[in-house]
Amino acid sequence: MTQLKLNCDLGEAYGVWHLGDDEPIMPLIDQANIACGFHAGDSSTMLKTLKLARANKVEIGAHPSYPDRVGFGRRSMRIAPEDLYNDVLYQTAALTGMAATLNIRVSYIKPHGALYHDMLSQSVTFGALLQAAKDCALKLMVPAGATTQFMQEQAANEGVELIFEAFADRRYTKHKTLLPRAEPGAVLSKCEMLEQARRLITDSCVISDCGTPIELRADTLCVHGDSPSALAALQEIRCLVNACVD
Amino acid sequence: MTQLKLNCDLGEAYGVWHLGDDEPIMPLIDQANIACGFHAGDSSTMLKTLKLARANKVEIGAHPSYPDRVGFGRRSMRIAPEDLYNDVLYQTAALTGMAATLNIRVSYIKPHGALYHDMLSQSVTFGALLQAAKDCALKLMVPAGATTQFMQEQAANEGVELIFEAFADRRYTKHKTLLPRAEPGAVLSKCEMLEQARRLITDSCVISDCGTPIELRADTLCVHGDSPSALAALQEIRCLVNACVD
Amino acid sequence: MTQLKLNCDLGEAYGVWHLGDDEPIMPLIDQANIACGFHAGDSSTMLKTLKLARANKVEIGAHPSYPDRVGFGRRSMRIAPEDLYNDVLYQTAALTGMAATLNIRVSYIKPHGALYHDMLSQSVTFGALLQAAKDCALKLMVPAGATTQFMQEQAANEGVELIFEAFADRRYTKHKTLLPRAEPGAVLSKCEMLEQARRLITDSCVISDCGTPIELRADTLCVHGDSPSALAALQEIRCLVNACVD
Amino acid sequence: MTQLKLNCDLGEAYGVWHLGDDEPIMPLIDQANIACGFHAGDSSTMLKTLKLARANKVEIGAHPSYPDRVGFGRRSMRIAPEDLYNDVLYQTAALTGMAATLNIRVSYIKPHGALYHDMLSQSVTFGALLQAAKDCALKLMVPAGATTQFMQEQAANEGVELIFEAFADRRYTKHKTLLPRAEPGAVLSKCEMLEQARRLITDSCVISDCGTPIELRADTLCVHGDSPSALAALQEIRCLVNACVD
Repeated sequence: MTQLKLNCDLGEAYGVWHLGDDEPIMPLIDQANIACGFHAGDSSTMLKTLKLARANKVEIGAHPSYPDRVGFGRRSMRIAPEDLYNDVLYQTAALTGMAATLNIRVSYIKPHGALYHDMLSQSVTFGALLQAAKDCALKLMVPAGATTQFMQEQAANEGVELIFEAFADRRYTKHKTLLPRAEPGAVLSKCEMLEQARRLITDSCVISDCGTPIELRADTLCVHGDSPSALAALQEIRCLVNACVD
Repeated sequence: MTQLKLNCDLGEAYGVWHLGDDEPIMPLIDQANIACGFHAGDSSTMLKTLKLARANKVEIGAHPSYPDRVGFGRRSMRIAPEDLYNDVLYQTAALTGMAATLNIRVSYIKPHGALYHDMLSQSVTFGALLQAAKDCALKLMVPAGATTQFMQEQAANEGVELIFEAFADRRYTKHKTLLPRAEPGAVLSKCEMLEQARRLITDSCVISDCGTPIELRADTLCVHGDSPSALAALQEIRCLVNACVD
Repeated sequence: MTQLKLNCDLGEAYGVWHLGDDEPIMPLIDQANIACGFHAGDSSTMLKTLKLARANKVEIGAHPSYPDRVGFGRRSMRIAPEDLYNDVLYQTAALTGMAATLNIRVSYIKPHGALYHDMLSQSVTFGALLQAAKDCALKLMVPAGATTQFMQEQAANEGVELIFEAFADRRYTKHKTLLPRAEPGAVLSKCEMLEQARRLITDSCVISDCGTPIELRADTLCVHGDSPSALAALQEIRCLVNACVD
Repeated sequence: MTQLKLNCDLGEAYGVWHLGDDEPIMPLIDQANIACGFHAGDSSTMLKTLKLARANKVEIGAHPSYPDRVGFGRRSMRIAPEDLYNDVLYQTAALTGMAATLNIRVSYIKPHGALYHDMLSQSVTFGALLQAAKDCALKLMVPAGATTQFMQEQAANEGVELIFEAFADRRYTKHKTLLPRAEPGAVLSKCEMLEQARRLITDSCVISDCGTPIELRADTLCVHGDSPSALAALQEIRCLVNACVD
């Protein structure tokens, strides 16, 4: 049985603008992906979120993005790989250095939004991220599924350790890719999500959109808690994970 | 005789926009104050400037600013001390972490522009900078002169080492402050500048606007090289410093 | 009896980040001060807010700010008057031109945050705003009170019409200035606020912090609706105003 | 014989950073494409450039971009068409309103950089730009060549007038597209450029990369003047155009 961790995107406020319920979420997760200022997160939000992670002994990941605050990093940008590498380095370094003043450390990079998606289809983008992770001596969080083998080989070449994540609330195709959001049934109901989480925890598998089980080996489960119902579901997933440990 | 170092603001390009002649300047100086993205310097410029400093074995300082790119950090902003501390931390951490990937390190912080000036008149601003330097385990570069004693006491309390700098090209008052730029004679001619540099190097003093010599103990001399004539003057100052060492 | 209008700051979302309850507030007010992108408000938020104002036949004001999004325009910046003029012009022009595509027009400028406050103490700042209002052929909204006479004279010289506003929820001193927020009693309770609104509507006066009534001639009342209780209070103020008209 | 105009991108400074030689270029051209703040151009630069255009009686175009200052608008961004429309509207409105305070008007929109290129391959992008031009009652500047007919039909449907431009310094393929920059011979020598300009002016044609003449009906010629040699070439092109008029 896999000991799955739970990870969540946090620190996504900006200036006076709030986003997400970081306080109640942090105690429920194992890994916090913290925004680094390019899509969300100003310096004050970053330090506050780092302190919250420290108080809850949560592992910390840098959550870098394309430089697109007004678009929340959700819009693909055609950036030269070396500039992308530099942008990821800048963001990761900022978070890492701030964490160091609190005597805690960042242990991985998880790309945000469009950058995360582009990493799956553009090998130069994945290469830039691998290089950044390598040069920062950090792990890289990527999706479990269709690209697992390719990514593992590339990462092994660079000596970078990958963390594979699965999504609790999204339907997978039989090809181990996410069913696009626009498709019917792409986003799971709370009930389906809990069932998928249970399967991932106990059997390392999910039921694809074809109705057949497919194997999905993941180290961590990406969760959300940005609404009262999402928070309630997250609490149940936490219980599922804890029960498996015992 | 004081072994003065030479420091200069570098890495102040942004995107396609150039500024300064970093390449010819870098070999002539001992300490490079590198912009960290808030008033100038994008991630690519920062990495390039760090590499140039490494190639020339130049000591590196973080050069953080108020968050004001269009104003080049020259406009005072009334920022809460804790937010200022966070902003300085963010910028310094970004540069420090990028430097670490090149196996070099940042050794001091020199505030930029309006932040530098506000540090002299606002004790909370100086306090925030001291705290940032302390928490990053870096020295803090400040002006030699009227505020030396106050700053030394405050820094000693925090256990922060200060680097005192003098200005080669600016006239000092008898109170060891800079004559405001608007005043006649405030900016020295090349000839006067070289004379002032010579006195600082050999006698730790300058001639004030009253015509009398005043003592000014500095560790480093702030220089500019952003025009052909400025670069020529910088080369002469470099020769003066080198001559004194021998 | 004065026919007071109600004005409110709206359109202060940014990208994915929400702020304020524009939809329920808009029908209750007469004048919407719409953010123009420098402290809040991206192009999509601006157009959406303009459409909401049009649907509710609400008068529109440009709500320009210092260029400080992360600080929400609440931090004073020492900007040269000509650059400030240009920044105000840019923001006002952007909103005005967007409104024109909807066949509606902007009728006044109300400075935001720190810019609003600096206008009261810095005559060059007020001058830059007056000039911008003049060149855009718009009115300028300013506080009623201590500075009324000075502002009226300056505005008359420039041929700019002023709109004077009072604050429903803030205590005034006998000098017709706002009691600073830090002082006890500076922010009124809901009950006190409604009483102050009633007096402003019926008697053009408020009770100062000394307990004596002072005259305060205002054209419009600045209101907030950014919480359920604030919205409820706003509805009551709307009723007060409507009752006075009948 | 076609009376070709000359157009040039201007106002591309930002804050302290200079770019281009606007002063000597402006008297040589007929149409100035002025940056609106998203890839270059702050409010002060915009007003200054507008005044320079007015002094030289040069027609003014808004030169909007993707929101990407550090990338100078040269990087494609996948923005939703309605957000793109809003961004173009915001930028165009800002310039138009600033021009109005100088009693001059903007007459067309020319998209900048990656937005210009995306307009050619993405019909939704072209559609958003057409809509913006329509709603602002402005013309839209587009390339002459392969897409002419499609664009003319779309524009006619919306009632938008197009301005077709040719490039003096770029090689065309026989398909009336630009030879990609990476290809050998893609960028013309000064001598070739002058020859191409002459053909465009006198014969409405260019010699393609196959060596055969192809018809290219353009209203305006895009020129550059951002180096001493480019400025000298621009002066010669100006003479060619003037000679044809007589």
